[in-house]
Amino acid sequence: MKKVIYFLSLFIITAVSAQKTDEEQLKDIYDAALTKSKAYDWLNYLSNQIGGRLSGSVQAQQAVDYTKLQLDELGLDKVWLQPVMVPKWNRGLPEFAYFESDPGVTTNVPICALGGSVATPLGGLKANVVEVKSLDDLAILGKQRLEGRIVFFNRPMDPTNISTFDAYSGCVDQRYAGAAEAAKYGAVGIIVRSMNLRLDDLPHTGTMSYGDLAINKRIPAAAISTNAADLLSLSLRLNPDISFYFKQNCEQFDDVQSYNVIGEIKGTTTPEEIMVVGGHLDSWDLGDGSHDDGAGCVQSMEVLHLLKESGYKPKRTIRVVLFMNEENGLRGGNKYAEVAKSKKEKHVFALESDSGGFTPRGFSFDCSEENFIQVQSWKPLFEPYLIHMFVKGHSGADIGPLKDDQMVLAGLRPDSQRYFDHHHAANDTFEHVNKRELELGAASMASLIYLFDKYGVIAAK
Amino acid sequence: MKKVIYFLSLFIITAVSAQKTDEEQLKDIYDAALTKSKAYDWLNYLSNQIGGRLSGSVQAQQAVDYTKLQLDELGLDKVWLQPVMVPKWNRGLPEFAYFESDPGVTTNVPICALGGSVATPLGGLKANVVEVKSLDDLAILGKQRLEGRIVFFNRPMDPTNISTFDAYSGCVDQRYAGAAEAAKYGAVGIIVRSMNLRLDDLPHTGTMSYGDLAINKRIPAAAISTNAADLLSLSLRLNPDISFYFKQNCEQFDDVQSYNVIGEIKGTTTPEEIMVVGGHLDSWDLGDGSHDDGAGCVQSMEVLHLLKESGYKPKRTIRVVLFMNEENGLRGGNKYAEVAKSKKEKHVFALESDSGGFTPRGFSFDCSEENFIQVQSWKPLFEPYLIHMFVKGHSGADIGPLKDDQMVLAGLRPDSQRYFDHHHAANDTFEHVNKRELELGAASMASLIYLFDKYGVIAAK
Repeated sequence: MKKVIYFLSLFIITAVSAQKTDEEQLKDIYDAALTKSKAYDWLNYLSNQIGGRLSGSVQAQQAVDYTKLQLDELGLDKVWLQPVMVPKWNRGLPEFAYFESDPGVTTNVPICALGGSVATPLGGLKANVVEVKSLDDLAILGKQRLEGRIVFFNRPMDPTNISTFDAYSGCVDQRYAGAAEAAKYGAVGIIVRSMNLRLDDLPHTGTMSYGDLAINKRIPAAAISTNAADLLSLSLRLNPDISFYFKQNCEQFDDVQSYNVIGEIKGTTTPEEIMVVGGHLDSWDLGDGSHDDGAGCVQSMEVLHLLKESGYKPKRTIRVVLFMNEENGLRGGNKYAEVAKSKKEKHVFALESDSGGFTPRGFSFDCSEENFIQVQSWKPLFEPYLIHMFVKGHSGADIGPLKDDQMVLAGLRPDSQRYFDHHHAANDTFEHVNKRELELGAASMASLIYLFDKYGVIAAK
Repeated sequence: MKKVIYFLSLFIITAVSAQKTDEEQLKDIYDAALTKSKAYDWLNYLSNQIGGRLSGSVQAQQAVDYTKLQLDELGLDKVWLQPVMVPKWNRGLPEFAYFESDPGVTTNVPICALGGSVATPLGGLKANVVEVKSLDDLAILGKQRLEGRIVFFNRPMDPTNISTFDAYSGCVDQRYAGAAEAAKYGAVGIIVRSMNLRLDDLPHTGTMSYGDLAINKRIPAAAISTNAADLLSLSLRLNPDISFYFKQNCEQFDDVQSYNVIGEIKGTTTPEEIMVVGGHLDSWDLGDGSHDDGAGCVQSMEVLHLLKESGYKPKRTIRVVLFMNEENGLRGGNKYAEVAKSKKEKHVFALESDSGGFTPRGFSFDCSEENFIQVQSWKPLFEPYLIHMFVKGHSGADIGPLKDDQMVLAGLRPDSQRYFDHHHAANDTFEHVNKRELELGAASMASLIYLFDKYGVIAAK
């Protein structure tokens, strides 16, 4: 009889623990994130032991090796590298720039080459500078006013936009397409105001494209700091004849071998349904890429760690993907989707964190109305954790190529106010990431993954 | 006829501009905050030109003079200083501490005196150390174990508490009452783990009280950094015979004259109804008091600036109050309430910002159910600005003494995750305040003031 009672008790305990409510499961996830997380230590290593991880660099490879090792140590069901060829662009020696308002009267300007730009001639490039506020201004000014000039794109991010990402979207065409467009009017180079809401002395790099412009038509493109942009603009109002000098030494090499880093926990009941969580392992080279996107990588790794820590056994396969080359090519995201399609894998949900490691505010969803209704029903579960934004919108660049009608794509939405102070600049560094904020983001992601795993994705049923 | 049309047009324009919707008014307030705010420049001056503003210090007086001058320049209807006597406690020469695990084997410890503590003897204080986790532990250990010892209070803030203020409340009794309680058991001094969720090397000061303990029974009290607390705790597990040495040179002086700084815009229709917005001008002395509470002061000043900038003419009197001596005495808050009562002033609403200059998340309200329902009806107006927390709770220490049943008291609730990294420590400095986050807080406060002014406070009708 005693034995029966003993086993009965054991059974009850097991049954009770198996019946954890969603509230309890989320509490366990958040508690684990705030007390046992590995995310901050991982980020410390990525940022301070490795540093900036530009595609094709030694550091990018070190990051592949390091994160694979860390995933191996989590005891996942499978960890592997997915080969992908990536572009290799190198900044070379530090850039240098000044403007000359009167002969011999020069002011140095903080500058950095845009990613993918060509170099200036060896001795640098010097020309008169013409300020514009948009790509459309080029046609208005025309070849007569632009030929032989350096075009200065100076439309600032709109500070009244509460979403700094929207303010960024409203400006970034200058950086991305400015050189290709200005070259059509005979400009010899472009400089662009850094995509930064703050007035400071740091130039912010970022990707740009020459489109289909022939190689011999390509002109060098660089970003200058916001303070320098304001100073140059004011100086041009006083004296339109200012000349600008810059020298940069960047170079594009042949593509090189690199990898997406992938790990998974196999689902217990429907392992063929795959849910992806990820960030991108590459970064720009000026800082150490802590917010963009070291944070998203370690949070994604942490999601699997937290699910294990909280004792949850997913029904579906949960896969972490650290994508290579988001910044200047998206090769990793494209390769992952290509392989998934060729293997006929069934992806039902993908979640990306690529908006910085700040306090999470919610998620944006790229999905059907039906799925969005499902997601909103979970909102009250997140209220104790101050997660309040469930909106429709962009998910993430790396998971975008996976998109189909059946899937839900989502992006973590952290507080965005500080993000562009650091984005693609030398101050995107570890000390600007707060440990708790990073961990709360990881917990929010793990909670969403848990809910999609438990209840399934409606359209995918 | 032309003249008639002209005046008619003028009338229509005026009428239309007078009929601004709440949505438009809030948009104007937020736009002005993000483009024309003076708050960040004011904070720069308070933090970098003046610095820490301990009650009774020269810097506190400089801050009084500076902020009065700035309010004068805003063109308010009235600006004045309200005299208040404040305690004057001085840290003296830097503190020094170590623990000795074996004779001659010492480890230096980052330490700071708690505000209001007595000094150690001139040559310092050395005694064996006993670790406890709570005030209750003292009775369990008793006089036998505590007499002649230094008590080490080491209960950490609970990292799983999403509200870091709640985690702080759960620990701060050790700092506030630890010395008074330990002295009853014959302890010769206390050290307390800093109120900080982060592991680092910065000690965090803060106020403490000896209660009714006779002056000759008072024992010195200090905080040590979280890293040092962990190291000492581990060392005590290895060797319970560790002795701790510390020397501090702080001193309490006689009360000195100081001031609350007050400015107001007179109401157009019911000027006798007063709405207060404020923060506290004093700070601790280790940092420059940027988050605690320089931010709250400049945001409160900015509220009046924003209302003027947006062209809003309040019906009620809007008063900014920069309270003196919140940190170690609350004399300014008490004095303000005392004067208000003696003058039979009718305060209908008071709002305090004293939780740091981080991204605003909402407000807490100390008010009747009826008023809380009114407030919640405004929530949708704040959604575009990502203000989502309207909760009942604590408002602010300085406005607390004003409380009566007719009023609404409120506190700004910014994101709290980073706050205790800086609170009362040497790193509460200007560079940790983000301009936009500060401005968004000011705009949120101005918007709430606007709504209460326009619709009135129900209970006060």
